[in-house]
Amino acid sequence: MPPFDVPEGDPFGPHNLPYGVFSLPGSTDRTVGVRLGDHVLDAGAAAAALGSPYVSLLARPSLNPLLAAGRTAWSDVRRALTAWVTVPSHQETIAGFLHPLPDVTLHLPFEVADYVDFYASEHHARNVGRIFRPDAADSLTPNWKHLPIGYHGRSGTVVVSGTDVVRPSGQRKASADPVPAFGPSIRLDIEAEVGFVVGVPTPMGRPVGLADFREHVFGLCLLNDWSARDIQAWEYVPLGPFLGKSFATSVSAWITPLDALEASRVTPPQRTHPLLEYLDDSLFADEPGGYDLRISVAINGHVVSEPPFSTMYWTAAQQLAHLTVNGASLRTGDLYGSGTVSGPSEHERGSLLELTWNGTQPLELPDGKRTFLEDGDVVTLSAWAPGPHGVRVGLGEVVGRVVGRGA
Amino acid sequence: MPPFDVPEGDPFGPHNLPYGVFSLPGSTDRTVGVRLGDHVLDAGAAAAALGSPYVSLLARPSLNPLLAAGRTAWSDVRRALTAWVTVPSHQETIAGFLHPLPDVTLHLPFEVADYVDFYASEHHARNVGRIFRPDAADSLTPNWKHLPIGYHGRSGTVVVSGTDVVRPSGQRKASADPVPAFGPSIRLDIEAEVGFVVGVPTPMGRPVGLADFREHVFGLCLLNDWSARDIQAWEYVPLGPFLGKSFATSVSAWITPLDALEASRVTPPQRTHPLLEYLDDSLFADEPGGYDLRISVAINGHVVSEPPFSTMYWTAAQQLAHLTVNGASLRTGDLYGSGTVSGPSEHERGSLLELTWNGTQPLELPDGKRTFLEDGDVVTLSAWAPGPHGVRVGLGEVVGRVVGRGA
Repeated sequence: MPPFDVPEGDPFGPHNLPYGVFSLPGSTDRTVGVRLGDHVLDAGAAAAALGSPYVSLLARPSLNPLLAAGRTAWSDVRRALTAWVTVPSHQETIAGFLHPLPDVTLHLPFEVADYVDFYASEHHARNVGRIFRPDAADSLTPNWKHLPIGYHGRSGTVVVSGTDVVRPSGQRKASADPVPAFGPSIRLDIEAEVGFVVGVPTPMGRPVGLADFREHVFGLCLLNDWSARDIQAWEYVPLGPFLGKSFATSVSAWITPLDALEASRVTPPQRTHPLLEYLDDSLFADEPGGYDLRISVAINGHVVSEPPFSTMYWTAAQQLAHLTVNGASLRTGDLYGSGTVSGPSEHERGSLLELTWNGTQPLELPDGKRTFLEDGDVVTLSAWAPGPHGVRVGLGEVVGRVVGRGA
Repeated sequence: MPPFDVPEGDPFGPHNLPYGVFSLPGSTDRTVGVRLGDHVLDAGAAAAALGSPYVSLLARPSLNPLLAAGRTAWSDVRRALTAWVTVPSHQETIAGFLHPLPDVTLHLPFEVADYVDFYASEHHARNVGRIFRPDAADSLTPNWKHLPIGYHGRSGTVVVSGTDVVRPSGQRKASADPVPAFGPSIRLDIEAEVGFVVGVPTPMGRPVGLADFREHVFGLCLLNDWSARDIQAWEYVPLGPFLGKSFATSVSAWITPLDALEASRVTPPQRTHPLLEYLDDSLFADEPGGYDLRISVAINGHVVSEPPFSTMYWTAAQQLAHLTVNGASLRTGDLYGSGTVSGPSEHERGSLLELTWNGTQPLELPDGKRTFLEDGDVVTLSAWAPGPHGVRVGLGEVVGRVVGRGA
């Protein structure tokens, strides 16, 4: 079958066209690729062959130049790419630049500037509150419904899907222990999240309002915020998570442009508390801030959860407005995670902490019981969104295998 | 006076030689400079004129290539620079590359990768505990004596000394308020800290032990961790400081190499709790991890505090060992702050929060009372350390002026 003939209904058809960065066997040269079905198009080579002006954005070793180019360029490049892969005369010219996915190596697609992680699922936050603060009057902290809680993570350990994750060592201390012990984490967990990638930077002192979200954010990806619960529990008071999270954060190799997800926009859950003006998205009802992404979490190929992103209380636009309201600047390549995606039902929880209720209710997998992750476990996040005319838009998967230190 | 004749006892004499990045009037070209007295030497131009191989490390727009070159190169370059500024034949060759400090513009001297902030002063941590948790049995959290508490900050808003700091806006809520209010922070504060700059990177999964600190850390600088106490108080439970800190962090324009501070190394305070092996510096008694830096904090030229860095409980080597013990990698340009430096006495506290006891005991300044910072206030951190033969080693100052939004 000619490589352009993607089967009808393929979630990576020409309605999708996510961006990544790849290299060919025997080469260290990285360049921007666009996924089409089970192939990747060398977008810079195609642009050059077609005499396109976008060669300067696409024949590059990372997505950063395209990210920085802004909304108009993003739309123009996407329109051009759509023509290249669908118009027969163009197809003929660029057919040699399509490579089967198994033949290429995929890399971290952009240079991560600052990485921020949020905590935007009410179901997740309530589950965590019930597990760790069972005696509290409210399972949410008093600030939760007034602002999207977030914190900075380590951008230097953001890795691309497929990268092994070494089980971290660190301090842990159960309340009954007199002193902390040191060793490999025994409560290694995942968090199924969606990551948002900032394209257009801002100077210090200029907040980005809700209306300008799409001028600054290029697209999204799946994100696994690996978490060592035992390390985190001992260290996090009073300044928040640190080594329990900083050892690795995995992102998908493909960045889905927001333009591919127009049909999946949905209204976020009903707000139960009045919001301050900079967060009040009730004025933007015709530009809904939610995305109907259907996530799937699998361990060793066995699906353990299906978190619905549409249930997130805080939207990505609200998170960006909050992140910048104090005057903090944005840089091209800033990445922010949504926070663990958990839906209202038991099968929709985005972490093992919740799925096993802090290890007290093990999951039954085909290869045995699981509370937290074991060495050798392979975790896969995948997702799709409703696209135009009922066709699904696939998100790139995030795969990571847990290996013991020294393995 | 010929520019090489620095007065005897000048804290920026040839025993010091800190590194920065500067540009000349009318030019946007940045290059590495070395401070000598009240002049800056264009180090790359000097290297080229002298036929030095170090031109490739010095004729660069940032310190990153030098930082990445490693301990042997750091010592070799320093030895060469010392000869250039002290040997008459060399002085003659490079005299034209010395520029008076007032004639140059100083820039952020390196590209900040990840920024981490610690909390290493026992006096500061106990003061904060007493202020915010007056009923707690212990003013320290249970983990404090077992690990150096830290968290990630925003590297994109690290700015060089001299940059104005715009008063941040955000949410605040006093416990008596029914809902949060929005507006400019009314409790804007400083934190006097020392920042450590990582040169040599590490791959993921390879911790840096205490013995290897000097192989990875190039030098240090002064750091002002501006803090909006009202924003921080409302947001920080449960995931730590975020917008209360992320609007700006100021660093000095000069990075002092550790090699210039050999004479100021001191033994840190007696450890009151046994430490896990990766943090146990009792085995390194002949390589003490403390630095005897005498810091001064001034508001509008009036000294309000003199925090002694020698009193810090956790050392920079312990902080680096902790930061990497979970397998987190290092990158060239990683920056980590010591945490607020506060000594045991009232005049040695490194924040207004402590100096005014949360605003209840205003400071008397020549221009009026102060609880927290007012618009127009200029904050200056400066410091010196004992050097060879009783000569002081000066650290570059950190200056920042508070401006109102829209000012």
